[in-house]
Amino acid sequence: MTLSQLINIYLPAIETELREVVARVQGHGLEELHTMMAYHLGWEGEGAGPKATGKRIRPILVLLSTQAAGGKWKKALPGAAAVELIHNFSLIHDDIEDNSPLRRGRPTLWIQWGIPLGINTGDAMFTLAHLALLRLEETATTEITLQAVKVLQNTCLQLTQGQHLDISYENEKTLPIEAYWPMVSGKTAALLAACTEIGALVADVDTQKRDAYQRFGRDLGLAFQALDDILGIWGDAAKIGKSNASDLVAGKKSLPVLYGLSQNGVFAQRWHAGPITANEVLTLAEQLEAEGARDYTQKEADRLTESALNALEQAQPQGEAGQALRQLANKLLQREV
Amino acid sequence: MTLSQLINIYLPAIETELREVVARVQGHGLEELHTMMAYHLGWEGEGAGPKATGKRIRPILVLLSTQAAGGKWKKALPGAAAVELIHNFSLIHDDIEDNSPLRRGRPTLWIQWGIPLGINTGDAMFTLAHLALLRLEETATTEITLQAVKVLQNTCLQLTQGQHLDISYENEKTLPIEAYWPMVSGKTAALLAACTEIGALVADVDTQKRDAYQRFGRDLGLAFQALDDILGIWGDAAKIGKSNASDLVAGKKSLPVLYGLSQNGVFAQRWHAGPITANEVLTLAEQLEAEGARDYTQKEADRLTESALNALEQAQPQGEAGQALRQLANKLLQREV
Repeated sequence: MTLSQLINIYLPAIETELREVVARVQGHGLEELHTMMAYHLGWEGEGAGPKATGKRIRPILVLLSTQAAGGKWKKALPGAAAVELIHNFSLIHDDIEDNSPLRRGRPTLWIQWGIPLGINTGDAMFTLAHLALLRLEETATTEITLQAVKVLQNTCLQLTQGQHLDISYENEKTLPIEAYWPMVSGKTAALLAACTEIGALVADVDTQKRDAYQRFGRDLGLAFQALDDILGIWGDAAKIGKSNASDLVAGKKSLPVLYGLSQNGVFAQRWHAGPITANEVLTLAEQLEAEGARDYTQKEADRLTESALNALEQAQPQGEAGQALRQLANKLLQREV
Repeated sequence: MTLSQLINIYLPAIETELREVVARVQGHGLEELHTMMAYHLGWEGEGAGPKATGKRIRPILVLLSTQAAGGKWKKALPGAAAVELIHNFSLIHDDIEDNSPLRRGRPTLWIQWGIPLGINTGDAMFTLAHLALLRLEETATTEITLQAVKVLQNTCLQLTQGQHLDISYENEKTLPIEAYWPMVSGKTAALLAACTEIGALVADVDTQKRDAYQRFGRDLGLAFQALDDILGIWGDAAKIGKSNASDLVAGKKSLPVLYGLSQNGVFAQRWHAGPITANEVLTLAEQLEAEGARDYTQKEADRLTESALNALEQAQPQGEAGQALRQLANKLLQREV
């Protein structure tokens, strides 16, 4: 079976697991809370459907890791639901913190229901994520369940720490390049590392393999973010037509931008002069490339991609799920194989 | 040893445990996140000190329960820290949701650092609470640790559900009396129930005793809230001098108010006519009392007090901690013994 065939088998099971967990929100007066969750998860309301649910990459990563590590993927469904709910909890709160009106093409939860209910629904989803994980008790030993709980809680600490850095950085005029990795480690890589580690844990692998799965997820996340930063400035959407989509207009302190600032050249001068407008984007992206930022970021992405793929080989993923895991990694890392 | 002597022994240990857990927030750029937590917990910043920390009633309840159930109170310190951090996480988010500028006489966290960092610090404290609880692994079995994790997560779901009701109720013009208990069960009673249940769990009591401890905490919380509602309208602070402290001015849908609304009399008429001002408070409180709201609420409080104290006796609390637990219950329930 190919990656997409496996995904087609996993996805309905993931949605069922998620719905069962979210169904725990019930009782008189709580219909609205359930509706809010169903809206955010893409199940209900205007624009509901596959585009609104997101790709469910994280739960897929959990299930592939379990199966590739020799376990039964169905046993890992509680972990799959948990990481997806953590991801969505963080999106709900991020959207409030960033004052974002849109998410996956629809009005954000707080735009629809206001900030107070929005914050609280995020909190409820945070708790549901952990309750989802506790369903592992039915498919795994007490020890494995507790290990998984610990992995996810440590991940959440990293997540909130990364988010703190991200919010703080917005007020800094400039930042050293070194500031980039701790932020991205928390915001993106930690949860992907939890996906592959929890997946391996459920398959009950030894510590060495578990560590390899964890590093695979982490470096996959880091490499993915660096590549995403390149797309944010030199990708088609950012470059042509939708200049407003450019990270330069958003003022995002991505890796190429931090590199550019460290060069103290024309780009840095322009950056410090004030917000960048859409009609400058093309010229400024060229300037940034000329100063070496694109090369630098690509090299970092290559280094991390290699590291991620090495870790994956050390994890010795088995069978069709192992192949699919390689395929998914290469796809996320924008490599043709 | 009396209650206050036991508290004097417990308190420094609770603070040490809390500080150790909060110290997990560290790393370059995360000093501010640590400072924010230390500020909210009353350790740092202007006005830091015993008044700013709050009374730590919840962790004390955990430790007393463990000791009264025949366990070593020190073993329950992870549970004690966990419930206090859950309580404080919920206060951080409540203050944002309610737009409250003050908490324990000091500017709230979001007033000092803004809403985005405020939300995120609440999230980080939520996670730290669960990480605090996982330290039980060092003092209890894997099974007990996992049971405690489950109790706390279920509690958090009730907490967020109760908060959803509370926020929703603000926009309702009127509410049936029955709407009161589900809200208060989630907002106040669930966490107190978790305190006594986790305390008993650590002492490894049988299911029946564990259930009795749980019911004791829950009914203690419900009775306490009903009594607090009486104080909010007929208490000294609400009545004399500080009329602004009256729940009537705040428009709080407390139990006496819901009773008054159900009577459809003079009070209900005035309530529906618009916000109540400080100079009406005395007359309106008298009117509400004349319509039977105070009696009704007191009877409900009495009923729940009896139920709480019955559950406590069923739990058969032992020794000086058992006596102290009775003392604490009577104190919280405003009874002289």
